[in-house]
Amino acid sequence: MAKERLVGNMLIAQSGGPTVVINQSLVGAVLEAKKHKEIKKIYGSLHGLKGILGENLCDLTKETQQNLELVAQTPSSALGSVRKKPMPEDCRKVFAVLKKYNIRYFFYIGGNDSAETTHIINEAALQGGYQMKCFHICKTIDNDLKENDHTPGFGSAGKFVAQAFMGDNLDNRSLPGVKINVIMGRHAGFLTAAAALARVFPNDGPHLIYLPERPFSLEKFVADVKAVNDKLGRCVIAVSEGIADENGEAIAAKFIKEVDSHGNIQLSGSGALGDLLAKEIKEKAQISRVRADTFGYLQRSFCGVVSAVDAKEARLAGATAVKFACGGQFNNGSTAIKRAPGKTYKTWIERTELRNVAKETRHMPDEFINAEGNDVTAAFVKYAAPIVGPLPKVGRLKAAPVAKK
Amino acid sequence: MAKERLVGNMLIAQSGGPTVVINQSLVGAVLEAKKHKEIKKIYGSLHGLKGILGENLCDLTKETQQNLELVAQTPSSALGSVRKKPMPEDCRKVFAVLKKYNIRYFFYIGGNDSAETTHIINEAALQGGYQMKCFHICKTIDNDLKENDHTPGFGSAGKFVAQAFMGDNLDNRSLPGVKINVIMGRHAGFLTAAAALARVFPNDGPHLIYLPERPFSLEKFVADVKAVNDKLGRCVIAVSEGIADENGEAIAAKFIKEVDSHGNIQLSGSGALGDLLAKEIKEKAQISRVRADTFGYLQRSFCGVVSAVDAKEARLAGATAVKFACGGQFNNGSTAIKRAPGKTYKTWIERTELRNVAKETRHMPDEFINAEGNDVTAAFVKYAAPIVGPLPKVGRLKAAPVAKK
Repeated sequence: MAKERLVGNMLIAQSGGPTVVINQSLVGAVLEAKKHKEIKKIYGSLHGLKGILGENLCDLTKETQQNLELVAQTPSSALGSVRKKPMPEDCRKVFAVLKKYNIRYFFYIGGNDSAETTHIINEAALQGGYQMKCFHICKTIDNDLKENDHTPGFGSAGKFVAQAFMGDNLDNRSLPGVKINVIMGRHAGFLTAAAALARVFPNDGPHLIYLPERPFSLEKFVADVKAVNDKLGRCVIAVSEGIADENGEAIAAKFIKEVDSHGNIQLSGSGALGDLLAKEIKEKAQISRVRADTFGYLQRSFCGVVSAVDAKEARLAGATAVKFACGGQFNNGSTAIKRAPGKTYKTWIERTELRNVAKETRHMPDEFINAEGNDVTAAFVKYAAPIVGPLPKVGRLKAAPVAKK
Repeated sequence: MAKERLVGNMLIAQSGGPTVVINQSLVGAVLEAKKHKEIKKIYGSLHGLKGILGENLCDLTKETQQNLELVAQTPSSALGSVRKKPMPEDCRKVFAVLKKYNIRYFFYIGGNDSAETTHIINEAALQGGYQMKCFHICKTIDNDLKENDHTPGFGSAGKFVAQAFMGDNLDNRSLPGVKINVIMGRHAGFLTAAAALARVFPNDGPHLIYLPERPFSLEKFVADVKAVNDKLGRCVIAVSEGIADENGEAIAAKFIKEVDSHGNIQLSGSGALGDLLAKEIKEKAQISRVRADTFGYLQRSFCGVVSAVDAKEARLAGATAVKFACGGQFNNGSTAIKRAPGKTYKTWIERTELRNVAKETRHMPDEFINAEGNDVTAAFVKYAAPIVGPLPKVGRLKAAPVAKK
């Protein structure tokens, strides 16, 4: 007996901070949808929720396979993104638009805010007695979604961070000094931790890693840096932009307050935290050559550095969400990447409840952070290495010393 | 009749800011030197001039070919670098060390400061009546060496900058706003200009490019950004860290002075210039979403983004310097990359006088800069594209609009 199918149009949108593989999920969903007869038109909303509210939709059925494949390998949300949580009045309007265009399949690609949005829209449809499949497709470079072993976008951003630290460590070895690099991730330290993958030879940097999961003390930081610098004559440091003191107050915010009365330097998309940590080291540790870089938007958008595993999983997340929606077993949910225990890297996509992903942020588990709270463990490296994938090979000269005459 | 050969040891060193292909030049020189019987030991000096002064040398004859090839593809000076101009007393000491180790072949890889150092050491040898072949091997991401069409290191740094802008433009298109990116290059704008290679589709950023070769006016800057933002709803800007006002005073320095009384924020290795330009746009152009990133050391060290042409030419520059030294025609000089006019990209290495490279900085020629002084010309793109090499392919959705209901 054939099961009853929900027939109608599909709408897909992208939300939150872009990643370099977010279009793999888009294209994965679109190509899968084309295989299902119950899905008629495939609409894309421009700039997420904003496009739905303004009825700025495009017809993805008209895209060629060749162009979709090119878009899939292009960084940053091809449909445009948005940072908007729906207000109650927005929900009513979104729901009205979805009904008007006979949307029966709704997909929203994003992080936990986007999962929350999907959840709200799903609740509105249920309350309105409107039959609609409603799925969130996971993504975030922060890797902080509950229920997921890891999230699409993290592998490629981690690869960028690792390759950046590989080069920066070599630069610092060549011209020694203290180098601070500020990495994205407000509440979870996974991306900052990925800097550890850069280590190849003994004494390679990053020599210290500071995560938002552990309280940050400026005194301890200065002492740590001084100790490494005394030993190696140099020090490369990875700092999460989200580091906070023991009361949970962000260090960046504390600094900003100080700077604010003078010049109102802003928190994100700026080099303020790195610059001010560098100043602290110069003054308190009495080290002259101290530099700071803030990797900024390069981490989530840099063109040409992609983890193949990440791209593949992002594509699969998109396709699987459509399979779930068309499969008849679930009316809503979120895609979650699961991973088999053991040595061999094996992952698959499961469906989880929207509210499971929407609610909280996932943090670095304790076993990934060292006791001192200034580095990661071997367990983290084992976890992250296959997601980031192979890194470029680098060498050192043997540099056999010549006896002084 | 066999020509008389100067027999003795060789010393090679690296100096100044590292590049991702500087080890290609090192390895090119070492492998070529191994072919010449008149060169006995091949020494490397650790950290340039500092290694010579402290007699911290290593024996490069003991490196395996396999390890040398791995080092060649590794970013940043494998011998270590230094930022040191020799004082008169240093020269005497350097000269004494070179004599003590019977160095008859001296090679120094670096920019114009390093060419100056090589020139001074050569003069000291001549005055001391000490026979020594003395060659400078060109490198600098700034691309500002006289006599060179371009320099090793520029192509790969340009590729990094172009790929960064490709991604950043897509990110900005996805989440619109004003985005300022600060690029290295104190006196020459070539690297900042390389951002133009990121443009693929109409209205792609960078929309504005500011170079040190043209006086920078804050008023004009704000007006330019406002005009682009009014037209496109977004604006991506490439700014050289070396932009200066009509009196030649660096904008960064002007800003720093203001900040100095409060907090002594430093000029290089910091995000200060970008942050302060962003503040200016927010306040004067009344645009709310303004972000700034400073690409920093990533530009010269990022691991895994290499221009194949750049790597090949860097290798050739090293090998050719040794050929010049062993060829009998020249006792000293600098390697300069020359390029055939016309459509086909063809380059070769010529020998030029040390003083020709040591003296001045090469700037962007007028035909590479637009009349308004806020962009580059098609002639620049034609010049730089083959040096940077092919870039990743990106796509846009056709995004056929759906009629509003």
